[in-house]
Amino acid sequence: MSEALLLGIVIGISILGLIAAWALAQWVLRRPTGSEAMQKISNAIKEGAEAFLRRQNRTIILLAAVVAAMLFIGYGFIRSHREFDPVASTVEMAAWITLSFVLGALCSVIAGYVGMWVSIRSNIRTATAALTSLNDALRIALRGGAVSGLLVVAMSLLGVGGLYALVSAFSDVAETQIPLLIVGYGFGASFVALFAQLGGGIYTKAADVGADLVGKVEAGIPEDDPRNPAVIADLVGDNVGDCAGRGADLFESTAAENIGAMILGASLAATADKAGYGFSAGVVGVMMFPLIARAFGIIASIIGIVSVRMDKEEKMDPMEALNRGYYIAVILAMIGFAGASYWLLDSPNAPAAWWHFFLCGVIGVMTSVAFVYITQYYTEYRYSPVKRIAEASVTGPATNIIAGIGVGLECVWMPTLVMGAALLASYYLGASSGLPHAGLFGTAVATMGMLATAAYILAMDTFGPITDNAGGIVEMSQQPEEVRVKTDRLDSVGNTTKALTKGYAVGSAALAAFLLFQAYMDEVSHYAGQEMHSVNLANPVVFVGSLIGAALVFLFSAMAIRAVGSAAQAIIAEVRRQYAKLPRLNDIIQFPADFKPDYGSCVDIVTRAALRKMVAPGLLVVVTPIAVGLIFKVFITETNRLVAAEAVAGLLMVGTICGILTALFLNNGGGAWDNAKKYIETGAHGGKYLTLKDGTKAKNPTHGAAVVGDTVGDPFKDTAGPSLHVLIKLLSTITLVLAPLFI
Amino acid sequence: MSEALLLGIVIGISILGLIAAWALAQWVLRRPTGSEAMQKISNAIKEGAEAFLRRQNRTIILLAAVVAAMLFIGYGFIRSHREFDPVASTVEMAAWITLSFVLGALCSVIAGYVGMWVSIRSNIRTATAALTSLNDALRIALRGGAVSGLLVVAMSLLGVGGLYALVSAFSDVAETQIPLLIVGYGFGASFVALFAQLGGGIYTKAADVGADLVGKVEAGIPEDDPRNPAVIADLVGDNVGDCAGRGADLFESTAAENIGAMILGASLAATADKAGYGFSAGVVGVMMFPLIARAFGIIASIIGIVSVRMDKEEKMDPMEALNRGYYIAVILAMIGFAGASYWLLDSPNAPAAWWHFFLCGVIGVMTSVAFVYITQYYTEYRYSPVKRIAEASVTGPATNIIAGIGVGLECVWMPTLVMGAALLASYYLGASSGLPHAGLFGTAVATMGMLATAAYILAMDTFGPITDNAGGIVEMSQQPEEVRVKTDRLDSVGNTTKALTKGYAVGSAALAAFLLFQAYMDEVSHYAGQEMHSVNLANPVVFVGSLIGAALVFLFSAMAIRAVGSAAQAIIAEVRRQYAKLPRLNDIIQFPADFKPDYGSCVDIVTRAALRKMVAPGLLVVVTPIAVGLIFKVFITETNRLVAAEAVAGLLMVGTICGILTALFLNNGGGAWDNAKKYIETGAHGGKYLTLKDGTKAKNPTHGAAVVGDTVGDPFKDTAGPSLHVLIKLLSTITLVLAPLFI
Repeated sequence: MSEALLLGIVIGISILGLIAAWALAQWVLRRPTGSEAMQKISNAIKEGAEAFLRRQNRTIILLAAVVAAMLFIGYGFIRSHREFDPVASTVEMAAWITLSFVLGALCSVIAGYVGMWVSIRSNIRTATAALTSLNDALRIALRGGAVSGLLVVAMSLLGVGGLYALVSAFSDVAETQIPLLIVGYGFGASFVALFAQLGGGIYTKAADVGADLVGKVEAGIPEDDPRNPAVIADLVGDNVGDCAGRGADLFESTAAENIGAMILGASLAATADKAGYGFSAGVVGVMMFPLIARAFGIIASIIGIVSVRMDKEEKMDPMEALNRGYYIAVILAMIGFAGASYWLLDSPNAPAAWWHFFLCGVIGVMTSVAFVYITQYYTEYRYSPVKRIAEASVTGPATNIIAGIGVGLECVWMPTLVMGAALLASYYLGASSGLPHAGLFGTAVATMGMLATAAYILAMDTFGPITDNAGGIVEMSQQPEEVRVKTDRLDSVGNTTKALTKGYAVGSAALAAFLLFQAYMDEVSHYAGQEMHSVNLANPVVFVGSLIGAALVFLFSAMAIRAVGSAAQAIIAEVRRQYAKLPRLNDIIQFPADFKPDYGSCVDIVTRAALRKMVAPGLLVVVTPIAVGLIFKVFITETNRLVAAEAVAGLLMVGTICGILTALFLNNGGGAWDNAKKYIETGAHGGKYLTLKDGTKAKNPTHGAAVVGDTVGDPFKDTAGPSLHVLIKLLSTITLVLAPLFI
Repeated sequence: MSEALLLGIVIGISILGLIAAWALAQWVLRRPTGSEAMQKISNAIKEGAEAFLRRQNRTIILLAAVVAAMLFIGYGFIRSHREFDPVASTVEMAAWITLSFVLGALCSVIAGYVGMWVSIRSNIRTATAALTSLNDALRIALRGGAVSGLLVVAMSLLGVGGLYALVSAFSDVAETQIPLLIVGYGFGASFVALFAQLGGGIYTKAADVGADLVGKVEAGIPEDDPRNPAVIADLVGDNVGDCAGRGADLFESTAAENIGAMILGASLAATADKAGYGFSAGVVGVMMFPLIARAFGIIASIIGIVSVRMDKEEKMDPMEALNRGYYIAVILAMIGFAGASYWLLDSPNAPAAWWHFFLCGVIGVMTSVAFVYITQYYTEYRYSPVKRIAEASVTGPATNIIAGIGVGLECVWMPTLVMGAALLASYYLGASSGLPHAGLFGTAVATMGMLATAAYILAMDTFGPITDNAGGIVEMSQQPEEVRVKTDRLDSVGNTTKALTKGYAVGSAALAAFLLFQAYMDEVSHYAGQEMHSVNLANPVVFVGSLIGAALVFLFSAMAIRAVGSAAQAIIAEVRRQYAKLPRLNDIIQFPADFKPDYGSCVDIVTRAALRKMVAPGLLVVVTPIAVGLIFKVFITETNRLVAAEAVAGLLMVGTICGILTALFLNNGGGAWDNAKKYIETGAHGGKYLTLKDGTKAKNPTHGAAVVGDTVGDPFKDTAGPSLHVLIKLLSTITLVLAPLFI
């Protein structure tokens, strides 16, 4: 198969995806923007979010520039040329690696920014549509989210395809070695993603926790009340944390996974070719398979997205409408996957190969579905885990916390078994495909299957903050009850999709990581000119590397959680300052009718805090694997010259294992606490208020205990947990890029 | 060196240790037992503790009998004889393995029981002594604790030495293969230890949490108030959880480590011998080195213990007195260690070997000291982590919990670096000793160094619950203020020693685990007749095994924490029932002067709950590695026939890494919360009570928030955390015993 044709298809479909994103954005932007009161709130959110993102991007670009310079100097001038390098001069190698890094970082910034740009414009339009039609509101929110989703996936594909085309055109590197030069793209993307997710995650939860503790708990005013000075910061947070952060996260997932799968595909095809198992579409076809499969997935996702609509009477559960669209996308993606497998993975001497790999893809899809169901079981109040937490709230906050931590720790076992089964099944499908050493490629194909519908999933994810914001705008502009009911219905669906996509993100991180560290070993073997076939935990050096990997996860989570805690305390102090001069009756604040809170100061405080606090944990993740690799390389003089690379691999793998489990613990524990509180608010265990004997209403302490759990869960599920997904992938990409330095 | 002489020394010193324990017990039992009121309370504690331990032992013995039968049948009749088995018939092999298991289990039960028997008799004598002399009280509590400590260490040594002598006398197994047959001793010990620690840990914290929440928080009565029906259960819990549990824990540590180190020593000596590096004391001398070093450590600990005393004016900090004794023990132990190294590890062709190994031992000691300091930093309120938690309590329980979890997650990094440095340093000291392949033995010797003073450490540990109980007896029998001051001083020292010994236990678990899985690989190589030199994480089967190991830690912790939560809820319900009929004024209970709470019902409820809840998590730990080994052996048909054994090794190693870090998180997080509360009680952030403008006292909500954290920390630090230490070691010993089945 000709490289040009395949590249043409990939780049063509990526551009089609971008056009679709543009068209959806236009469609959303043409919708009406509602009353002046609503616009005022929306504009405040817009301003805050854009200001934060601008400042955040400035910091990130600065950091990325430093890393880029170090990459260029390190590869160009410090590391000496080796026999097995894919290009002839160190400067050329440095140039390609640095260019990929810069492009990856830039695209990630753009994807995050544009996605958020659209979503902060979709929220007011969703709110306005909700005044008349739930169907319109649903479609605006989903399509607004889809702009993000398509943009992310299409740009990531375009970047990899384009870089490949560039290297192919301007250098004489062998085709199958090109992926080794563009691994920097994934690293650039994850580098930005980590800071975006961390900064956004700290921002959103600091504002949320601060607003809740001082507004709801101390001043006794409802959520999203305009008298709370932190409320705009809270709404801004939904955008910068949930939209921009998650967008950057999935951008790098798909980018890293594309390149990793290409490396594995190239290595598989070369081995198979030598052993007499040529492919009908040639070595390049196998290498391009991940990109083609992804491209087909984009088309499937577009069709799925535009097909979502409610029934005429608007009686159906909006979740059902979203699910129907998802199933359409999945089925189409799988048809495309089967076609691509047959086209590119067919080997005349191993006739079973193509459908074995197709089945691996199906396993990937099934894994993502299983993750979604498990997440539901542990975080929705229809099931016993959340009910258990609610019940434990009756004896106070301490037992609520104990129960929630119990649920969080417990929830890891089912995903573990699912991941284990998926990895082993796809490995054995690959191994029994008739091709030699194809087991690992089987696991890679499972990952591709899982990520095939990433654009749709991401659209559902961004749907969450858009509906959340729409609800906030409706609440703050004091719309009639029936409108609130509509936005509440959408908001609750949004909460569900946010939780589900987090499950999906962990699952994909797990599979992708396994793929990426196989790519790492492949790469080390390439550069060292010597097979690296083992990461031997029984070697004390590797064991210590692994121990450090696990400890890194703990320390990083601690820093993320602590950042939220201290930023929230700053917000609390600011709100208290603004309330200090208000008149009080029996210690209850009597708000004057003309009370105008200063939203800007809260936005400002949390912006500065988030930016300051994101740097240390982010750098920790970047520096640790490099330090381990270099220190072990210099100080350890073993007979095994790959020992430093092996120790880094141990760090990566055990860090990944711990990271996945800790992320599940944090995400699901946090989600379960959140819904235990909501369950009590539906009236369980006495509901939000108790009616005393004398007929007056009093706060229900059971609800108060559940609020404590909910607040503890906030930084778990929206800061540390999602940042861990990115940490896992950043570890993989950073080691991929720096592997040559450790040998 | 003659085997008989070495065995004679080992067995002789073990018996000496037992005699010393007996003499100390006699010394303690001769002290006066105080007033009738005090005796009544002490007897109630005694009764409850003995009843629980009897019932717990019945359950454990039943479970152990089932395992013993399965071991005998599995080895005797299901597994077929292999070429490389150390004995000729399967039944003989089954008999030795089962006998070792039964003996190990039995000794562990006895050590736990006798230790507790003495400590529940020491508490009243400590309380009585406190009426007159702090010095006497200190010495009674320490010597009471030392009975436990010496008994545990001496019995574990006697068991291993005795079993070795038995096998040597009644079979014709080659000397260096004997340790392979007696690995069951360690498994038996850990099996009992796991259930003892789990059952005791659930008991103590369910009672504690229940008593606190309903007594202190709801009814507003002080700690250890006789009107609280759960108070006796709480005091019983200190004994069954902290004494009996920790005793069983360290019993198995030393037993497992002794056997593991013997296996490694035998393997090192045999290799060295073949390569022309004979030892002056022969192969047997190297193999016996761990036992001899341990024996010398017992003598050092005895001298350390009896040398502890206060200054004449009783002005000094009792902690200082304990530390002085510890340093005496450490210095003596190191002198003995140096002597044993020179005597048994000297090789004429590698003259540097003996002192290289001696330095490894010094590294082990330094590691334990470093762990102690790190634990202090993270859990004492002189330092910033605990202060941070106290400060976060000002904004309520949610921020208190967030801060505490932050501290717990953060605290793992320093121990990780210390462990890493210790492992690598001792590995390289061993590797550079001049002997071939001696690196791993170096890490083993570091472990022995760390465990040399185990008896002293254990004495300090049991000192904790004895002084805690003494304080309870003084409080409940309403002794004058000056006596309380004395017991409070001792109690606060006891809290410190408990926290420190937990740090020591984790550190030793980490080093011992690395030793034990080297022994595992050695053993697999033996039985398979083929070197197992790698645990390759890059193999998907091994990766999945590792993932399961990590998830096991999470699930186990969840079950332990949940057990405490639900048992505490049962206690709360019972206390509320007893209080239901009491008269109330403004919702505050007015206790009638003749109110007699029913202590027995609370003791009974928590006994039943702890026994019921300990079974599932305990069995989970036993069943998981077996299931992974057997399933992977049957279903996976790789070319590598060691793959199932390798997957189990992955489970063991990654489970250990995760287990250590999670245990540190739980222990130190819990300890930090506890002391944050105590810090506030010293008057920080407003203290326990605020004085209102009208002069009345009101509860300080900051203190209330800290109590929530303290309660959450209870099951962390006293149930799940310590049980994880045992889990780590049980995984090691179970895989050691069952390794032949996975090949």
